[in-house]
Amino acid sequence: MLRVGVIGTGMIGQDHIRRMTSVLAGVRVTAVTDVDAAVAASVAASIGAASFPDGASLIVSDDVDAVVVCSWGPTHEEYVLAAIAAGKPVFCEKPLATTAAACLRIVEAEAAFGSRLVQVGYMRRYDASYRALKAVLDRGDLGAPLMMHCAHRNASVPGFYSREMAITDTAVHEIDMVRWMFGEEITAVRVLTPRRSGNGGDLQDPLLLIFELESGVLVDVETSVNIRYGYDIRGEIVGENGTAALGSLSPVQVRVAGAASDPVPADWRERFLRAYDVEFQEWIDSLAGGGQPVGPSAWDGYAAAVVSDAGVAALRGGERVPVVLASQPALYRAEVAA
Amino acid sequence: MLRVGVIGTGMIGQDHIRRMTSVLAGVRVTAVTDVDAAVAASVAASIGAASFPDGASLIVSDDVDAVVVCSWGPTHEEYVLAAIAAGKPVFCEKPLATTAAACLRIVEAEAAFGSRLVQVGYMRRYDASYRALKAVLDRGDLGAPLMMHCAHRNASVPGFYSREMAITDTAVHEIDMVRWMFGEEITAVRVLTPRRSGNGGDLQDPLLLIFELESGVLVDVETSVNIRYGYDIRGEIVGENGTAALGSLSPVQVRVAGAASDPVPADWRERFLRAYDVEFQEWIDSLAGGGQPVGPSAWDGYAAAVVSDAGVAALRGGERVPVVLASQPALYRAEVAA
Amino acid sequence: MLRVGVIGTGMIGQDHIRRMTSVLAGVRVTAVTDVDAAVAASVAASIGAASFPDGASLIVSDDVDAVVVCSWGPTHEEYVLAAIAAGKPVFCEKPLATTAAACLRIVEAEAAFGSRLVQVGYMRRYDASYRALKAVLDRGDLGAPLMMHCAHRNASVPGFYSREMAITDTAVHEIDMVRWMFGEEITAVRVLTPRRSGNGGDLQDPLLLIFELESGVLVDVETSVNIRYGYDIRGEIVGENGTAALGSLSPVQVRVAGAASDPVPADWRERFLRAYDVEFQEWIDSLAGGGQPVGPSAWDGYAAAVVSDAGVAALRGGERVPVVLASQPALYRAEVAA
Amino acid sequence: MLRVGVIGTGMIGQDHIRRMTSVLAGVRVTAVTDVDAAVAASVAASIGAASFPDGASLIVSDDVDAVVVCSWGPTHEEYVLAAIAAGKPVFCEKPLATTAAACLRIVEAEAAFGSRLVQVGYMRRYDASYRALKAVLDRGDLGAPLMMHCAHRNASVPGFYSREMAITDTAVHEIDMVRWMFGEEITAVRVLTPRRSGNGGDLQDPLLLIFELESGVLVDVETSVNIRYGYDIRGEIVGENGTAALGSLSPVQVRVAGAASDPVPADWRERFLRAYDVEFQEWIDSLAGGGQPVGPSAWDGYAAAVVSDAGVAALRGGERVPVVLASQPALYRAEVAA
Repeated sequence: MLRVGVIGTGMIGQDHIRRMTSVLAGVRVTAVTDVDAAVAASVAASIGAASFPDGASLIVSDDVDAVVVCSWGPTHEEYVLAAIAAGKPVFCEKPLATTAAACLRIVEAEAAFGSRLVQVGYMRRYDASYRALKAVLDRGDLGAPLMMHCAHRNASVPGFYSREMAITDTAVHEIDMVRWMFGEEITAVRVLTPRRSGNGGDLQDPLLLIFELESGVLVDVETSVNIRYGYDIRGEIVGENGTAALGSLSPVQVRVAGAASDPVPADWRERFLRAYDVEFQEWIDSLAGGGQPVGPSAWDGYAAAVVSDAGVAALRGGERVPVVLASQPALYRAEVAA
Repeated sequence: MLRVGVIGTGMIGQDHIRRMTSVLAGVRVTAVTDVDAAVAASVAASIGAASFPDGASLIVSDDVDAVVVCSWGPTHEEYVLAAIAAGKPVFCEKPLATTAAACLRIVEAEAAFGSRLVQVGYMRRYDASYRALKAVLDRGDLGAPLMMHCAHRNASVPGFYSREMAITDTAVHEIDMVRWMFGEEITAVRVLTPRRSGNGGDLQDPLLLIFELESGVLVDVETSVNIRYGYDIRGEIVGENGTAALGSLSPVQVRVAGAASDPVPADWRERFLRAYDVEFQEWIDSLAGGGQPVGPSAWDGYAAAVVSDAGVAALRGGERVPVVLASQPALYRAEVAA
Repeated sequence: MLRVGVIGTGMIGQDHIRRMTSVLAGVRVTAVTDVDAAVAASVAASIGAASFPDGASLIVSDDVDAVVVCSWGPTHEEYVLAAIAAGKPVFCEKPLATTAAACLRIVEAEAAFGSRLVQVGYMRRYDASYRALKAVLDRGDLGAPLMMHCAHRNASVPGFYSREMAITDTAVHEIDMVRWMFGEEITAVRVLTPRRSGNGGDLQDPLLLIFELESGVLVDVETSVNIRYGYDIRGEIVGENGTAALGSLSPVQVRVAGAASDPVPADWRERFLRAYDVEFQEWIDSLAGGGQPVGPSAWDGYAAAVVSDAGVAALRGGERVPVVLASQPALYRAEVAA
Repeated sequence: MLRVGVIGTGMIGQDHIRRMTSVLAGVRVTAVTDVDAAVAASVAASIGAASFPDGASLIVSDDVDAVVVCSWGPTHEEYVLAAIAAGKPVFCEKPLATTAAACLRIVEAEAAFGSRLVQVGYMRRYDASYRALKAVLDRGDLGAPLMMHCAHRNASVPGFYSREMAITDTAVHEIDMVRWMFGEEITAVRVLTPRRSGNGGDLQDPLLLIFELESGVLVDVETSVNIRYGYDIRGEIVGENGTAALGSLSPVQVRVAGAASDPVPADWRERFLRAYDVEFQEWIDSLAGGGQPVGPSAWDGYAAAVVSDAGVAALRGGERVPVVLASQPALYRAEVAA
């Protein structure tokens, strides 16, 4: 039974606590902490866990085998580094850290430690559709992959959402997915700006991102963040001999009022609920008996940050921006493709 | 943490033990038993549970809060009655018992006990597609339901499979599903015999079953048990103003070699894997704090047996056979519709 | 250029005149007649055709190579027999005649004539989807056919529509389609009556028809004639090794307001518009250079009438009713399968 | 009855002759000519038309009301100008002429004539799916259009096919379609070059074209010309509130061998057969009684040529290339949107 300490008991933290308490096997949340001590105490009481005054003390507690970081982004680096210092596995919600430099510090710390402790919360790798897509690709039925077409659509975003967030918060999921899907790095980014939707006021929405990969595979990603009709994630890989696309996952088809209709999910929770469950269960299972995590690594978190930065630069400057990564520590070799 | 004792550690029993040990929350398997004591001992050792010499001793053990019965069908009645006698919740894999009379004895024992202890393993009620279908129906979008068209197709069945088993083992899932979906009893059964498939030797396959419901709703069910192409479960409700059907659940669509193709599941494990997980998690959750089970009841198990018997009679005699149920104890009122 | 005379210039007659005048090649409407002489004169003037006082004179006119009968059903027999007497090809809208006995008189007259002159207006044989379905069946990919599931749904029917018309006017299309699809006769009919839709007042709607074929193939047909949501024609053949179904023909898929939707046709005109065009073009082409028609024959019209009669008897009596056909003249051998 | 003279009796010319002779209404091919006089004579004899020694004499013949140009591309300009000089309607297969300058000479000649005579053979405007897509767009259900994603895939191309032809011969259909769909001009083109398919030797395939429109709408077009699996045309418009895509047109769905499969067309003939028929029928109908053509105009042919040239320049230079059109004569105002 893995004993987990959770740092940050806001919405996402509470959701993961619920998951580890009521949904998954082999895990128990034994410790929590939050900047709001009252919230932490209340959550702790509800599940019979201890409430800690801060992340530092939680991380080193003997009742904590592994750490889950769900706090505010700017605090991630500190907690993840502290977990590495303590030699404890740490699951960090995305982003790994708020700058590429901070991510690289984590990469270096983990590389110095010598084995993997860090996993970053990119859950698409755990979605059944993406996994089926990767299985088709890896089977070779399509021949070599040449392109991928993606769309990432949200029904709406809050008023504070900026054009850069369409890359750093929205398309970042495609950034990680693409690196995992094709097992190679993104080498350059372009961002094109279509006609602006009136649904988001001054927000430049949608965007068309274009990623180049090492092998030359070209990936285009539409982000539409105020498209009203629902949350819709699309992806189609174009290979030499055919294509494979994320399938329909409609549980029911209704024929009324002149149309045969499949429901579209309302939001990401509905679409990726199971992926979160699988992500955590596999993380828990990987740690059993002192094992290492095998999911998205600190390097993956770092690479996502660098590509995001390149995307933001491309959006602002209007030009193709190359992606320049630091030298990859040996620890992460073959990690992208895993 | 619910402490469960499992009677029967064959294939299905081991699968449920794996589920309760490695997949679900809030449960621990503390006790097992099997006719093959060596198998039971081996399974017990692997999960740190106790091995019991027989079901009777397991059921009354203080380390067992609830019982799961996965043994050979003819033993079900004995174990379920023993659990009722011990006042312990019992999850019994289908069938509840091998005769309608035996099922009725269980119903009567539970009714005498005065509250629900028994749940029967009809897992379709826990499938996301059937639940979405029922949600559409209950929302009233279709108007009153009038008909339902179903198909239950298996790629192949073993050589010992008989024509009666297409009803008692295969269509019995539709029997339970239909009663749950529409919240009413089946009142008569017809079985028609189409041209015989050459894939099953002398086996009369496929069959076309027709169920009449209390309200007049008519349900047709095709069973095709050697259809080679895969495991395919179809269902479409026809209402006054429209229809709703089980949707496509294809995780990926592949375009190669002249066709756009969605994979079909190979077997029931693949199709209903999640339904089993949800079934058990909800059963576990329902028992927390001394609660009662809310899933398929002893009455549901009894009704399925009576309808199956009517189906077998209809198959053998070629005529419409009415379904005659015993008087329903008050304990089960509104259970069908729950 | 085939010169056609049209008897009956009501809605359907005018539609066929439009088709032969503005859509198809190799044909000219040279003569029309109608019980309402003023309508006939007006239609004739609009297309430069001659208006005749009655069908008899139109049929024998030297300006008429072939006859199209679109008049009131009870008049069909007279006109078709007159065309046969004149040795002229005649396309008769369904029904061939209003009784099986009248149909049989036409069959006998044509058989006495010695070669085919008559074609009946069953247009589904010309629908691209049904043809693709038959092509799959005939290729043998499914193994031997065992069952077929059909649905025939209308958004609404007029107040005078009777329960018998669901067989004689609605399901009669499936009757002809099934005989053509499988190349064999229907041997018995059952009609089951589900819970009644409130959309049609006292009308018994829907119905579930079950046809037995010579080889044992079983066909079930749902007729729902007031189902509101649109005109929907479904068909799935179940073979030994797989199934084939009428495909989706949605020209566009729209994603708005929480759903991905395909439009459903509003009525049979929209659904089968092209089938009518193809039906007539192939009829015209078949007659070029004095050829014989190859579409639905007088025998097909007769068989449809006998099966419809059996269906009506089954509906009224509640029992399985065998279909008893007269001996088939040699002229029609192999016609069903053509 | 429109009397048509056909210049060029090669494969495409013979197909249009067949169409006008055996499929469509209101038209007769009265005259043909070809560089191969023997072929022209043979075709003429088979349909009872006159064979002319050259296009010039055919165009001025009193037996020719309208001209169809199906000859070798470099000859188009001469014949179209001659038809304009003769004041006769002329349908010219794409391209209108082989250079933008030549197209512009035609535009100027027609503008000088003062009314429309020329129609260019862009048949997608007549495809039922594209029309349904445009109807959804024009209804406003999607809000303002912002992007369109297209794919144009061929199973294979001949060995002489060059990377430029992916624009001038393949994507040119999307160029015309996009201008018609959105009723505005393309203002700039980018061409990106993904990883190369091994199926085409040294051919740079696929390509990703990106068109900018006057309103800012961004259109991406994948061309994959050796993708083996079939001929697949895809298109999805992204609007402010939703999307609309070309639908599935599968006539049949087959379930065998582990998959539910819809056939993909083998080639453009299969996919757009009906569009050609509708294109010609509407052209014929538009000319009845001395009317003007309303399909793709000389201006459309000119614009397609200019955009193609920009695309080729973008492909060769790797940069975004603006589209610079001549001033549009008043004759063509509102033509794009028609």
